[in-house]
Amino acid sequence: MFNKTSLIAIALVSSISVAQAWEALPTTAPEPADNPSTTEKVTLGKILYHDPRLSSTGTVSCASCHNTMLGGEDNRAGSMGVDGQVGGRSAPTVWNSAFNSVQFWDGRAASLEEQAAGPVTNPIEMGMKDWAAVVARLKTIDGYQDLFKQAFGKDSISKDNATKAIAAYERTLITPNSPYDLYVKGDKSALNAQQIRGMNKAEEVGCINCHSGAAFNGAGVMQKFPVKGNAYFEAQYDFAKDKGLAEVTKKDSDENVWKVPTLRNIALTAPYFHNGSVKSLEKAVKIMAKVQLDTKLSDDDTADIVAFLNALTGEFPEQTMPVLPATTGTTVNK
Amino acid sequence: MFNKTSLIAIALVSSISVAQAWEALPTTAPEPADNPSTTEKVTLGKILYHDPRLSSTGTVSCASCHNTMLGGEDNRAGSMGVDGQVGGRSAPTVWNSAFNSVQFWDGRAASLEEQAAGPVTNPIEMGMKDWAAVVARLKTIDGYQDLFKQAFGKDSISKDNATKAIAAYERTLITPNSPYDLYVKGDKSALNAQQIRGMNKAEEVGCINCHSGAAFNGAGVMQKFPVKGNAYFEAQYDFAKDKGLAEVTKKDSDENVWKVPTLRNIALTAPYFHNGSVKSLEKAVKIMAKVQLDTKLSDDDTADIVAFLNALTGEFPEQTMPVLPATTGTTVNK
Repeated sequence: MFNKTSLIAIALVSSISVAQAWEALPTTAPEPADNPSTTEKVTLGKILYHDPRLSSTGTVSCASCHNTMLGGEDNRAGSMGVDGQVGGRSAPTVWNSAFNSVQFWDGRAASLEEQAAGPVTNPIEMGMKDWAAVVARLKTIDGYQDLFKQAFGKDSISKDNATKAIAAYERTLITPNSPYDLYVKGDKSALNAQQIRGMNKAEEVGCINCHSGAAFNGAGVMQKFPVKGNAYFEAQYDFAKDKGLAEVTKKDSDENVWKVPTLRNIALTAPYFHNGSVKSLEKAVKIMAKVQLDTKLSDDDTADIVAFLNALTGEFPEQTMPVLPATTGTTVNK
Repeated sequence: MFNKTSLIAIALVSSISVAQAWEALPTTAPEPADNPSTTEKVTLGKILYHDPRLSSTGTVSCASCHNTMLGGEDNRAGSMGVDGQVGGRSAPTVWNSAFNSVQFWDGRAASLEEQAAGPVTNPIEMGMKDWAAVVARLKTIDGYQDLFKQAFGKDSISKDNATKAIAAYERTLITPNSPYDLYVKGDKSALNAQQIRGMNKAEEVGCINCHSGAAFNGAGVMQKFPVKGNAYFEAQYDFAKDKGLAEVTKKDSDENVWKVPTLRNIALTAPYFHNGSVKSLEKAVKIMAKVQLDTKLSDDDTADIVAFLNALTGEFPEQTMPVLPATTGTTVNK
């Protein structure tokens, strides 16, 4: 799918960017050595993922903010946790998150397992006091004892196993066969002329220098955003206010450094940016070109790139609804 | 399954109660003449039912409080609507709600269609300003135009059709083949000795005078609760504070009059009563016997009745997860 000119262009900029072939999305995700997937883990993980009783109020599950019936998030600027509290960052999509090298916007979790532990005890997200309280609650719910046994052996309800099961489930949330994937696998009719123009433009402008790899998520390299200070945008969108990785490390060099979010299914995950401050994909593309690449995109080029991004919407696997184990004749909620 | 004594007993009290045969749950629900079910309506209704964008914040769907992955509700005393607001009544189960003659705890809706319209615009539930706003929003979501067209014809997004579709979906939420159902259909091994004792005790004490019919939901006759004022229970549970039907009609004769809730899947729907003030089924049974029937149940009889009630947990149909239509490149949420 490369023409000669773009191949040369890539060769020329290879010292400052990652030359890449256009890759289709794998249909299976890498697994850590200490958490090989099994059907039993995935079954348990799917149930835990959708169980609102993992929150203090019994109203917020992982799926509340990372909605598997939608684009893997909630289409909100800030997610709403227990008791109507609103967070400062926009929920990233769970779809294809198995292909991220790090998790959370600020990359503070090295794995899906580590990520899964976080929101449950975050006071403005799922609000559980600590994981001991989560484990104690899970033990009171009929059915979890057996589900954990199937997945991990007898008496195995623990934070470690709960997060392993959730991660195993999340590794199944892959959306292959987008028009882009079909195109790079050889079906030249899968993209229309505008989408192909947008694909080439995204390369030419430099979008995919950072949004690289099969998941267009940077292949593990975090990036500064915004690169170019821009008072006009800043006044409207407050991009630089949240210091990103530096909020964790307290290092100046990590200020406004972020995980590169996937472009997969980007059309389904408005609003955009870490703070969800930009409602439309078109505007997000223009802003990214300007503040990251110092490029003022024309309306036509923007429309072409958006058309290409629309071609990154994949096939969502049909899922059965989990049946959550009951608390027979009682409740763990308020 | 009647013995002679109980048949005579029922005959003797027939002037004040409804003599009934023990009935299995039908596997299809009655439909109103103006809303015959179709596959297309059910498909649309299931999507609408699970779409949190029917709430002002984009966080609360019908399923949030009437959870189809659980016992059809949220196992909370008061449900949590938009912005963390908590309602004063406990969400009734959606499972088998198609067999209720009236809907809502106070019976103020005559049909599932009428019920479905309510929570969407209730300020502490789903918080939409009005149905015009709901319809306007649905029209901005790619995919709904076509889903409504399939179900109702061209340009058919409306309050009337949205609620008809939701009701059509709810009519599919039936849980047949509980141990009780198998028993009354002839499998005498489906109930154990304790459950059979409990079944007979529930009849003897009078539970099923009100909890009558195949769904144990009163066959359309509303009832006063509590019948007997009881200062001890009132101090703990505030049963009489909420005036029930009288809150709607403002008639003294309707004070503390309620829809008879189904006993189907009752083991899954703690906490109990209209205000969810009682956490355990065992306690709920004792209280009901006392305040409704002036009967002090022994611990053994209570355990037997609870065992019988556990046998009313049915088979939950396997459901696929709906894929909600996307707002491509934008969002309707805050």
